[in-house]
Amino acid sequence: MNNVIELLKSHTSIRNFKEYPVSDETVIELIEAGQSAASSNFVQAYTVIQVKDPEKRRIMAEIAGNQKHVETSPVFLVFVADLERARLCTTLHGEKMEEGQTEAFIIATVDTALMAQNLMIAAESMGLGGVYIGALRNNPQIVSELLELPEHTYPLFGMCLGYPASINEKKPRLPVKLVLKTDTYQNGAEVQLLEKYDQTISEYYSKRSSLNRSDTYTQQLARMFSKPLRPHMKAYLSEQKLNTK
Amino acid sequence: MNNVIELLKSHTSIRNFKEYPVSDETVIELIEAGQSAASSNFVQAYTVIQVKDPEKRRIMAEIAGNQKHVETSPVFLVFVADLERARLCTTLHGEKMEEGQTEAFIIATVDTALMAQNLMIAAESMGLGGVYIGALRNNPQIVSELLELPEHTYPLFGMCLGYPASINEKKPRLPVKLVLKTDTYQNGAEVQLLEKYDQTISEYYSKRSSLNRSDTYTQQLARMFSKPLRPHMKAYLSEQKLNTK
Repeated sequence: MNNVIELLKSHTSIRNFKEYPVSDETVIELIEAGQSAASSNFVQAYTVIQVKDPEKRRIMAEIAGNQKHVETSPVFLVFVADLERARLCTTLHGEKMEEGQTEAFIIATVDTALMAQNLMIAAESMGLGGVYIGALRNNPQIVSELLELPEHTYPLFGMCLGYPASINEKKPRLPVKLVLKTDTYQNGAEVQLLEKYDQTISEYYSKRSSLNRSDTYTQQLARMFSKPLRPHMKAYLSEQKLNTK
Repeated sequence: MNNVIELLKSHTSIRNFKEYPVSDETVIELIEAGQSAASSNFVQAYTVIQVKDPEKRRIMAEIAGNQKHVETSPVFLVFVADLERARLCTTLHGEKMEEGQTEAFIIATVDTALMAQNLMIAAESMGLGGVYIGALRNNPQIVSELLELPEHTYPLFGMCLGYPASINEKKPRLPVKLVLKTDTYQNGAEVQLLEKYDQTISEYYSKRSSLNRSDTYTQQLARMFSKPLRPHMKAYLSEQKLNTK
Protein backbone atom coordinates (compact mmCIF):
# COMPACT_ATOMS: atom_id res chain seq x y z
CA MET A 1 0.00 0.00 0.00
CA ASN A 2 1.59 3.34 -0.99
CA ASN A 3 1.35 6.41 1.24
CA VAL A 4 -1.47 8.02 -0.79
CA ILE A 5 -3.66 4.95 -0.51
CA GLU A 6 -2.78 4.78 3.17
CA LEU A 7 -3.92 8.40 3.52
CA LEU A 8 -7.19 7.72 1.66
CA LYS A 9 -7.90 4.64 3.76
CA SER A 10 -7.25 6.46 7.03
CA HIS A 11 -10.07 8.98 6.41
CA THR A 12 -12.50 9.61 9.22
CA SER A 13 -14.73 12.64 9.70
CA ILE A 14 -13.23 15.21 12.07
CA ARG A 15 -15.58 17.36 14.15
CA ASN A 16 -13.23 18.42 16.98
CA PHE A 17 -10.54 20.90 16.06
CA LYS A 18 -7.55 22.47 17.76
CA GLU A 19 -7.68 26.22 17.98
CA TYR A 20 -4.79 26.69 15.55
CA PRO A 21 -5.94 28.86 12.68
CA VAL A 22 -5.71 27.84 9.01
CA SER A 23 -4.25 30.60 6.85
CA ASP A 24 -5.88 32.11 3.76
CA GLU A 25 -2.84 30.89 1.76
CA THR A 26 -3.57 27.33 2.85
CA VAL A 27 -7.21 27.67 1.81
CA ILE A 28 -6.10 28.91 -1.62
CA GLU A 29 -3.73 25.95 -1.96
CA LEU A 30 -6.60 23.61 -1.07
CA ILE A 31 -8.89 25.25 -3.63
CA GLU A 32 -6.24 24.84 -6.34
CA ALA A 33 -5.83 21.17 -5.47
CA GLY A 34 -9.62 20.83 -5.58
CA GLN A 35 -9.78 22.46 -9.00
CA SER A 36 -7.39 19.87 -10.41
CA ALA A 37 -10.16 17.26 -10.31
CA ALA A 38 -11.78 16.26 -13.59
CA SER A 39 -14.76 18.33 -14.70
CA SER A 40 -17.50 17.35 -17.13
CA ASN A 41 -16.68 19.06 -20.47
CA PHE A 42 -14.35 21.25 -18.42
CA VAL A 43 -17.31 23.33 -17.20
CA GLN A 44 -16.01 23.59 -13.60
CA ALA A 45 -19.54 24.19 -12.38
CA TYR A 46 -18.73 25.13 -8.79
CA THR A 47 -18.09 28.07 -6.51
CA VAL A 48 -16.75 27.73 -2.98
CA ILE A 49 -17.75 30.32 -0.40
CA GLN A 50 -15.63 30.57 2.72
CA VAL A 51 -17.88 31.78 5.50
CA LYS A 52 -16.03 33.99 7.95
CA ASP A 53 -18.94 36.08 9.21
CA PRO A 54 -19.70 34.75 12.74
CA GLU A 55 -23.42 35.47 12.55
CA LYS A 56 -23.79 33.60 9.22
CA ARG A 57 -21.90 30.67 10.70
CA ARG A 58 -24.07 30.67 13.80
CA ILE A 59 -27.22 30.49 11.69
CA MET A 60 -25.79 27.76 9.47
CA ALA A 61 -24.78 25.70 12.51
CA GLU A 62 -28.39 25.93 13.64
CA ILE A 63 -29.71 24.95 10.22
CA ALA A 64 -27.38 21.93 10.25
CA GLY A 65 -29.15 20.63 13.36
CA ASN A 66 -27.01 22.48 15.89
CA GLN A 67 -23.68 21.16 14.66
CA LYS A 68 -21.48 23.39 16.80
CA HIS A 69 -18.38 22.75 14.63
CA VAL A 70 -20.06 24.62 11.74
CA GLU A 71 -19.78 27.70 13.94
CA THR A 72 -16.40 27.00 15.55
CA SER A 73 -14.14 25.15 13.08
CA PRO A 74 -11.14 27.17 11.87
CA VAL A 75 -12.45 27.04 8.29
CA PHE A 76 -16.00 26.61 7.04
CA LEU A 77 -16.60 26.30 3.30
CA VAL A 78 -19.89 26.08 1.41
CA PHE A 79 -19.68 24.20 -1.90
CA VAL A 80 -22.10 25.72 -4.36
CA ALA A 81 -23.10 23.78 -7.47
CA ASP A 82 -22.98 26.63 -9.94
CA LEU A 83 -24.66 26.99 -13.34
CA GLU A 84 -24.92 30.76 -12.99
CA ARG A 85 -21.43 31.10 -14.47
CA ALA A 86 -22.68 29.12 -17.48
CA ARG A 87 -25.66 31.49 -17.69
CA LEU A 88 -23.27 34.45 -17.67
CA CYS A 89 -21.17 32.87 -20.45
CA THR A 90 -24.22 32.29 -22.66
CA THR A 91 -25.33 35.90 -22.10
CA LEU A 92 -21.86 37.22 -22.95
CA HIS A 93 -22.21 35.51 -26.35
CA GLY A 94 -25.75 36.71 -27.00
CA GLU A 95 -27.31 33.34 -26.24
CA LYS A 96 -29.90 32.25 -23.70
CA MET A 97 -29.26 29.41 -21.29
CA GLU A 98 -31.66 26.47 -21.37
CA GLU A 99 -32.80 26.58 -17.76
CA GLY A 100 -33.81 23.76 -15.48
CA GLN A 101 -32.17 20.87 -17.28
CA THR A 102 -31.78 17.78 -15.11
CA GLU A 103 -28.59 16.82 -16.96
CA ALA A 104 -27.01 20.22 -16.23
CA PHE A 105 -28.03 19.76 -12.60
CA ILE A 106 -26.22 16.40 -12.51
CA ILE A 107 -23.13 17.90 -14.16
CA ALA A 108 -22.94 20.70 -11.59
CA THR A 109 -23.55 18.35 -8.68
CA VAL A 110 -20.85 15.91 -9.79
CA ASP A 111 -18.32 18.64 -10.66
CA THR A 112 -18.76 20.12 -7.20
CA ALA A 113 -18.45 16.76 -5.44
CA LEU A 114 -15.27 15.74 -7.29
CA MET A 115 -13.70 19.10 -6.54
CA ALA A 116 -14.63 18.88 -2.85
CA GLN A 117 -13.24 15.38 -2.45
CA ASN A 118 -9.92 16.44 -3.99
CA LEU A 119 -9.87 19.36 -1.57
CA MET A 120 -10.61 17.09 1.40
CA ILE A 121 -7.71 14.79 0.44
CA ALA A 122 -5.36 17.74 -0.02
CA ALA A 123 -6.37 18.97 3.44
CA GLU A 124 -5.76 15.56 4.99
CA SER A 125 -2.34 15.35 3.31
CA MET A 126 -1.42 18.56 5.17
CA GLY A 127 -2.46 17.15 8.54
CA LEU A 128 -5.85 18.87 8.50
CA GLY A 129 -9.11 17.02 8.90
CA GLY A 130 -12.72 17.79 8.21
CA VAL A 131 -16.32 16.79 7.75
CA TYR A 132 -18.92 17.31 5.05
CA ILE A 133 -22.06 19.13 6.19
CA GLY A 134 -24.89 17.84 3.98
CA ALA A 135 -27.32 19.15 6.61
CA LEU A 136 -27.09 22.63 5.07
CA ARG A 137 -29.79 21.19 2.82
CA ASN A 138 -32.10 21.18 5.85
CA ASN A 139 -32.81 24.76 4.86
CA PRO A 140 -31.16 25.62 1.55
CA GLN A 141 -33.41 28.69 1.21
CA ILE A 142 -31.92 30.43 4.24
CA VAL A 143 -28.39 29.40 3.22
CA SER A 144 -29.06 30.92 -0.20
CA GLU A 145 -30.24 34.15 1.36
CA LEU A 146 -27.27 34.35 3.71
CA LEU A 147 -24.79 33.81 0.86
CA GLU A 148 -26.81 35.83 -1.70
CA LEU A 149 -26.87 32.87 -4.07
CA PRO A 150 -28.38 33.66 -7.46
CA GLU A 151 -30.69 31.43 -9.48
CA HIS A 152 -28.95 28.50 -11.22
CA THR A 153 -26.95 27.68 -8.08
CA TYR A 154 -27.54 25.66 -4.92
CA PRO A 155 -25.55 24.91 -1.75
CA LEU A 156 -24.64 21.23 -2.15
CA PHE A 157 -22.89 20.84 1.19
CA GLY A 158 -20.58 22.59 3.62
CA MET A 159 -17.21 21.45 4.93
CA CYS A 160 -15.52 22.13 8.27
CA LEU A 161 -11.72 22.04 8.24
CA GLY A 162 -9.01 22.40 10.86
CA TYR A 163 -6.32 20.56 12.78
CA PRO A 164 -7.85 17.51 14.49
CA ALA A 165 -8.13 17.61 18.28
CA SER A 166 -9.24 13.98 18.32
CA ILE A 167 -9.67 11.24 15.74
CA ASN A 168 -12.45 8.64 15.74
CA GLU A 169 -12.01 5.00 14.83
CA LYS A 170 -12.65 4.31 11.18
CA LYS A 171 -16.08 2.83 10.43
CA PRO A 172 -15.94 -0.46 8.53
CA ARG A 173 -17.24 -0.04 4.98
CA LEU A 174 -19.55 -2.37 3.03
CA PRO A 175 -17.81 -5.58 1.93
CA VAL A 176 -16.22 -5.18 -1.50
CA LYS A 177 -18.34 -8.09 -2.72
CA LEU A 178 -21.46 -5.96 -2.29
CA VAL A 179 -20.01 -2.91 -3.97
CA LEU A 180 -18.00 -4.35 -6.88
CA LYS A 181 -19.76 -6.49 -9.47
CA THR A 182 -18.83 -7.83 -12.89
CA ASP A 183 -20.86 -7.23 -16.06
CA THR A 184 -24.24 -7.18 -14.32
CA TYR A 185 -25.87 -5.69 -11.23
CA GLN A 186 -27.67 -8.94 -10.48
CA ASN A 187 -26.12 -10.89 -7.66
CA GLY A 188 -28.10 -13.35 -5.58
CA ALA A 189 -26.00 -13.03 -2.41
CA GLU A 190 -27.04 -9.46 -1.42
CA VAL A 191 -29.10 -10.35 1.67
CA GLN A 192 -26.48 -12.73 3.05
CA LEU A 193 -23.72 -10.15 2.61
CA LEU A 194 -25.84 -7.43 4.23
CA GLU A 195 -26.53 -9.65 7.24
CA LYS A 196 -22.83 -10.30 7.67
CA TYR A 197 -22.10 -6.58 7.37
CA ASP A 198 -24.78 -5.84 9.97
CA GLN A 199 -22.79 -7.98 12.42
CA THR A 200 -19.59 -6.07 11.64
CA ILE A 201 -21.28 -2.68 12.11
CA SER A 202 -23.10 -3.77 15.22
CA GLU A 203 -19.76 -4.85 16.78
CA TYR A 204 -18.19 -1.56 15.73
CA TYR A 205 -20.98 0.47 17.38
CA SER A 206 -20.93 -1.54 20.59
CA LYS A 207 -17.14 -1.35 20.97
CA ARG A 208 -16.27 2.15 19.84
CA SER A 209 -14.95 4.50 22.49
CA SER A 210 -17.50 7.30 22.09
CA LEU A 211 -21.22 7.28 21.39
CA ASN A 212 -21.51 3.50 21.45
CA ARG A 213 -24.97 2.21 20.61
CA SER A 214 -26.90 -0.80 19.38
CA ASP A 215 -27.65 -0.50 15.67
CA THR A 216 -27.07 -2.11 12.30
CA TYR A 217 -26.58 -0.82 8.76
CA THR A 218 -29.84 -2.22 7.42
CA GLN A 219 -31.79 -0.78 10.37
CA GLN A 220 -30.27 2.65 9.81
CA LEU A 221 -31.15 2.62 6.13
CA ALA A 222 -34.64 1.27 6.81
CA ARG A 223 -35.31 4.15 9.22
CA MET A 224 -33.81 6.77 6.94
CA PHE A 225 -35.44 5.81 3.64
CA SER A 226 -38.93 4.90 4.85
CA LYS A 227 -39.54 8.54 5.75
CA PRO A 228 -39.55 11.79 3.77
CA LEU A 229 -36.01 13.15 3.33
CA ARG A 230 -35.77 16.92 3.08
CA PRO A 231 -38.99 16.96 1.04
CA HIS A 232 -38.54 20.69 0.32
CA MET A 233 -35.61 20.05 -2.03
CA LYS A 234 -37.58 19.69 -5.25
CA ALA A 235 -39.49 22.95 -4.78
CA TYR A 236 -36.37 24.78 -3.63
CA LEU A 237 -34.43 23.62 -6.70
CA SER A 238 -37.31 24.66 -8.98
CA GLU A 239 -37.19 28.15 -7.49
CA GLN A 240 -33.48 28.20 -8.32
CA LYS A 241 -34.44 27.17 -11.89
CA LEU A 242 -32.71 23.83 -11.48
CA ASN A 243 -33.73 20.21 -12.16
CA THR A 244 -37.18 20.97 -13.59
CA LYS A 245 -37.04 19.31 -17.02
CA MET B 1 3.73 21.41 -1.83
CA ASN B 2 3.65 17.84 -0.46
CA ASN B 3 3.65 14.79 -2.76
CA VAL B 4 -0.11 14.19 -2.42
CA ILE B 5 -0.96 17.74 -3.50
CA GLU B 6 1.58 17.37 -6.30
CA LEU B 7 -0.20 14.20 -7.41
CA LEU B 8 -3.62 15.91 -7.28
CA LYS B 9 -2.37 18.90 -9.23
CA SER B 10 -0.77 16.75 -11.93
CA HIS B 11 -4.11 15.16 -12.90
CA THR B 12 -4.97 15.04 -16.58
CA SER B 13 -7.45 12.72 -18.25
CA ILE B 14 -5.78 9.67 -19.81
CA ARG B 15 -7.37 8.12 -22.89
CA ASN B 16 -4.37 6.24 -24.33
CA PHE B 17 -3.26 3.18 -22.43
CA LYS B 18 -0.40 0.70 -22.62
CA GLU B 19 -1.45 -2.87 -23.17
CA TYR B 20 -0.31 -3.94 -19.69
CA PRO B 21 -3.24 -5.49 -17.86
CA VAL B 22 -4.51 -4.31 -14.46
CA SER B 23 -5.09 -7.22 -12.08
CA ASP B 24 -8.34 -7.97 -10.25
CA GLU B 25 -6.43 -7.53 -6.98
CA THR B 26 -5.52 -3.99 -8.01
CA VAL B 27 -9.15 -3.21 -8.86
CA ILE B 28 -10.19 -4.47 -5.41
CA GLU B 29 -7.56 -2.27 -3.76
CA LEU B 30 -8.88 0.71 -5.75
CA ILE B 31 -12.46 -0.02 -4.69
CA GLU B 32 -11.42 -0.17 -1.04
CA ALA B 33 -9.64 3.16 -1.34
CA GLY B 34 -12.76 4.56 -3.02
CA GLN B 35 -14.99 3.29 -0.23
CA SER B 36 -12.93 5.20 2.34
CA ALA B 37 -14.47 8.46 1.12
CA ALA B 38 -17.10 10.12 3.29
CA SER B 39 -20.69 9.06 2.69
CA SER B 40 -23.86 10.95 3.60
CA ASN B 41 -25.24 9.32 6.79
CA PHE B 42 -22.92 6.39 5.95
CA VAL B 43 -25.40 5.16 3.31
CA GLN B 44 -22.67 4.27 0.76
CA ALA B 45 -25.21 4.61 -2.04
CA TYR B 46 -23.09 3.22 -4.87
CA THR B 47 -22.29 0.06 -6.76
CA VAL B 48 -19.40 -0.25 -9.20
CA ILE B 49 -19.72 -2.64 -12.11
CA GLN B 50 -16.53 -3.68 -13.86
CA VAL B 51 -17.44 -4.42 -17.44
CA LYS B 52 -15.34 -7.23 -18.88
CA ASP B 53 -17.75 -8.52 -21.52
CA PRO B 54 -16.32 -7.29 -24.87
CA GLU B 55 -19.73 -6.92 -26.53
CA LYS B 56 -21.10 -4.80 -23.66
CA ARG B 57 -18.01 -2.61 -23.83
CA ARG B 58 -18.33 -2.24 -27.60
CA ILE B 59 -21.92 -1.02 -27.23
CA MET B 60 -21.02 1.35 -24.40
CA ALA B 61 -18.15 2.81 -26.45
CA GLU B 62 -20.69 3.52 -29.19
CA ILE B 63 -23.15 5.07 -26.72
CA ALA B 64 -20.35 7.32 -25.42
CA GLY B 65 -19.99 8.85 -28.90
CA ASN B 66 -17.51 6.28 -30.22
CA GLN B 67 -14.94 6.70 -27.48
CA LYS B 68 -12.72 3.79 -28.46
CA HIS B 69 -10.99 3.69 -25.05
CA VAL B 70 -14.28 2.59 -23.45
CA GLU B 71 -13.86 -0.59 -25.48
CA THR B 72 -10.08 -1.00 -25.21
CA SER B 73 -8.85 0.34 -21.84
CA PRO B 74 -7.49 -2.37 -19.48
CA VAL B 75 -10.26 -1.61 -16.97
CA PHE B 76 -13.69 -0.12 -17.54
CA LEU B 77 -15.90 0.62 -14.53
CA VAL B 78 -19.48 1.89 -14.42
CA PHE B 79 -20.34 3.87 -11.28
CA VAL B 80 -23.97 3.27 -10.40
CA ALA B 81 -25.73 5.63 -7.99
CA ASP B 82 -27.60 3.05 -5.97
CA LEU B 83 -30.73 3.43 -3.82
CA GLU B 84 -31.83 -0.15 -4.52
CA ARG B 85 -29.70 -1.33 -1.59
CA ALA B 86 -31.64 1.13 0.60
CA ARG B 87 -34.88 -0.29 -0.81
CA LEU B 88 -33.70 -3.80 0.11
CA CYS B 89 -32.84 -2.67 3.65
CA THR B 90 -36.27 -1.10 4.17
CA THR B 91 -37.94 -4.31 2.90
CA LEU B 92 -35.79 -6.48 5.20
CA HIS B 93 -37.24 -4.50 8.12
CA GLY B 94 -40.82 -4.61 6.92
CA GLU B 95 -40.84 -0.99 5.78
CA LYS B 96 -41.50 0.59 2.38
CA MET B 97 -39.00 2.97 0.78
CA GLU B 98 -40.24 6.46 -0.06
CA GLU B 99 -39.49 6.39 -3.79
CA GLY B 100 -38.47 9.20 -6.07
CA GLN B 101 -37.17 11.65 -3.49
CA THR B 102 -34.94 14.36 -4.97
CA GLU B 103 -32.89 14.51 -1.78
CA ALA B 104 -32.16 10.76 -1.92
CA PHE B 105 -31.16 11.22 -5.57
CA ILE B 106 -28.68 13.93 -4.53
CA ILE B 107 -27.29 11.75 -1.72
CA ALA B 108 -26.70 8.83 -4.08
CA THR B 109 -25.16 11.04 -6.76
CA VAL B 110 -22.76 12.71 -4.32
CA ASP B 111 -21.81 9.46 -2.55
CA THR B 112 -20.95 7.91 -5.90
CA ALA B 113 -18.92 10.92 -7.07
CA LEU B 114 -16.87 11.14 -3.84
CA MET B 115 -16.14 7.43 -4.00
CA ALA B 116 -15.10 7.63 -7.66
CA GLN B 117 -12.78 10.56 -7.09
CA ASN B 118 -11.03 8.72 -4.25
CA LEU B 119 -10.66 5.74 -6.55
CA MET B 120 -9.22 7.91 -9.34
CA ILE B 121 -6.61 9.37 -6.97
CA ALA B 122 -5.71 5.92 -5.65
CA ALA B 123 -5.23 4.78 -9.26
CA GLU B 124 -3.03 7.75 -10.07
CA SER B 125 -0.94 7.11 -6.97
CA MET B 126 -0.18 3.66 -8.40
CA GLY B 127 0.94 5.04 -11.75
CA LEU B 128 -2.36 4.34 -13.44
CA GLY B 129 -4.38 7.01 -15.22
CA GLY B 130 -7.94 7.33 -16.37
CA VAL B 131 -10.87 9.33 -17.61
CA TYR B 132 -14.48 9.76 -16.51
CA ILE B 133 -17.07 8.81 -19.12
CA GLY B 134 -20.13 10.98 -18.46
CA ALA B 135 -21.26 10.22 -21.99
CA LEU B 136 -22.77 6.93 -20.80
CA ARG B 137 -25.69 9.23 -20.01
CA ASN B 138 -26.16 9.66 -23.76
CA ASN B 139 -28.24 6.50 -23.47
CA PRO B 140 -28.68 5.46 -19.86
CA GLN B 141 -31.58 3.19 -20.86
CA ILE B 142 -29.37 0.88 -22.93
CA VAL B 143 -26.63 0.95 -20.28
CA SER B 144 -29.24 -0.07 -17.71
CA GLU B 145 -30.39 -2.95 -19.88
CA LEU B 146 -26.82 -4.14 -20.54
CA LEU B 147 -25.97 -4.12 -16.82
CA GLU B 148 -29.43 -5.30 -15.69
CA LEU B 149 -29.78 -2.27 -13.42
CA PRO B 150 -32.89 -2.36 -11.22
CA GLU B 151 -35.16 0.56 -10.37
CA HIS B 152 -33.71 3.03 -7.82
CA THR B 153 -30.31 3.02 -9.57
CA TYR B 154 -28.74 4.88 -12.48
CA PRO B 155 -25.36 4.81 -14.25
CA LEU B 156 -23.78 8.11 -13.22
CA PHE B 157 -20.61 7.76 -15.27
CA GLY B 158 -18.02 5.27 -16.45
CA MET B 159 -14.27 5.31 -15.88
CA CYS B 160 -11.46 3.95 -18.07
CA LEU B 161 -8.28 2.99 -16.23
CA GLY B 162 -4.88 1.69 -17.26
CA TYR B 163 -1.19 2.54 -17.53
CA PRO B 164 -0.80 5.78 -19.52
CA ALA B 165 0.73 5.49 -23.00
CA SER B 166 0.85 9.29 -23.29
CA ILE B 167 0.02 12.21 -21.04
CA ASN B 168 -1.56 15.50 -22.16
CA GLU B 169 -0.60 18.93 -20.91
CA LYS B 170 -2.69 20.01 -17.97
CA LYS B 171 -5.50 22.46 -18.83
CA PRO B 172 -5.36 25.71 -16.87
CA ARG B 173 -8.26 25.89 -14.40
CA LEU B 174 -10.47 28.92 -13.62
CA PRO B 175 -8.64 31.58 -11.59
CA VAL B 176 -9.07 31.01 -7.85
CA LYS B 177 -10.61 34.48 -7.59
CA LEU B 178 -13.59 33.27 -9.61
CA VAL B 179 -14.03 30.07 -7.66
CA LEU B 180 -13.34 31.11 -4.06
CA LYS B 181 -15.44 33.83 -2.46
CA THR B 182 -15.93 35.08 1.08
CA ASP B 183 -19.30 35.31 2.86
CA THR B 184 -21.30 36.09 -0.30
CA TYR B 185 -21.61 34.89 -3.87
CA GLN B 186 -21.84 38.44 -5.17
CA ASN B 187 -18.64 39.68 -6.77
CA GLY B 188 -18.60 42.46 -9.32
CA ALA B 189 -15.44 41.32 -11.15
CA GLU B 190 -16.84 38.13 -12.76
CA VAL B 191 -16.86 39.33 -16.39
CA GLN B 192 -13.36 40.78 -16.20
CA LEU B 193 -11.99 37.58 -14.68
CA LEU B 194 -13.74 35.45 -17.29
CA GLU B 195 -12.27 37.55 -20.11
CA LYS B 196 -8.79 37.09 -18.68
CA TYR B 197 -9.36 33.36 -18.33
CA ASP B 198 -10.58 33.21 -21.94
CA GLN B 199 -7.16 34.53 -23.01
CA THR B 200 -5.39 31.87 -20.93
CA ILE B 201 -7.52 29.07 -22.38
CA SER B 202 -7.25 30.39 -25.90
CA GLU B 203 -3.44 30.38 -25.62
CA TYR B 204 -3.50 26.88 -24.18
CA TYR B 205 -5.62 25.60 -27.09
CA SER B 206 -3.50 27.29 -29.76
CA LYS B 207 -0.21 26.02 -28.31
CA ARG B 208 -0.98 22.49 -27.14
CA SER B 209 0.72 19.70 -29.03
CA SER B 210 -2.38 17.75 -30.07
CA LEU B 211 -5.82 18.85 -31.22
CA ASN B 212 -4.99 22.54 -31.16
CA ARG B 213 -7.93 24.78 -31.96
CA SER B 214 -9.29 28.29 -31.58
CA ASP B 215 -11.74 28.48 -28.71
CA THR B 216 -12.42 30.11 -25.35
CA TYR B 217 -14.03 29.00 -22.11
CA THR B 218 -17.02 31.34 -22.38
CA GLN B 219 -17.64 30.28 -26.00
CA GLN B 220 -17.59 26.61 -25.02
CA LEU B 221 -20.06 27.15 -22.20
CA ALA B 222 -22.29 29.37 -24.35
CA ARG B 223 -22.48 26.63 -27.01
CA MET B 224 -23.04 23.86 -24.48
CA PHE B 225 -25.72 25.47 -22.29
CA SER B 226 -27.79 27.23 -24.95
CA LYS B 227 -28.89 23.84 -26.30
CA PRO B 228 -30.75 20.88 -24.81
CA LEU B 229 -28.38 18.63 -22.83
CA ARG B 230 -29.36 14.96 -22.76
CA PRO B 231 -33.04 15.97 -22.50
CA HIS B 232 -34.03 12.33 -21.94
CA MET B 233 -32.53 12.30 -18.43
CA LYS B 234 -35.61 13.43 -16.53
CA ALA B 235 -37.88 10.82 -18.08
CA TYR B 236 -35.25 8.10 -17.75
CA LEU B 237 -34.78 8.88 -14.04
CA SER B 238 -38.55 8.86 -13.50
CA GLU B 239 -38.71 5.38 -15.01
CA GLN B 240 -36.03 4.36 -12.51
CA LYS B 241 -38.26 5.87 -9.76
CA LEU B 242 -35.66 8.56 -9.04
CA ASN B 243 -35.84 12.35 -8.68
CA THR B 244 -39.60 12.71 -9.12
CA LYS B 245 -40.64 14.50 -5.93
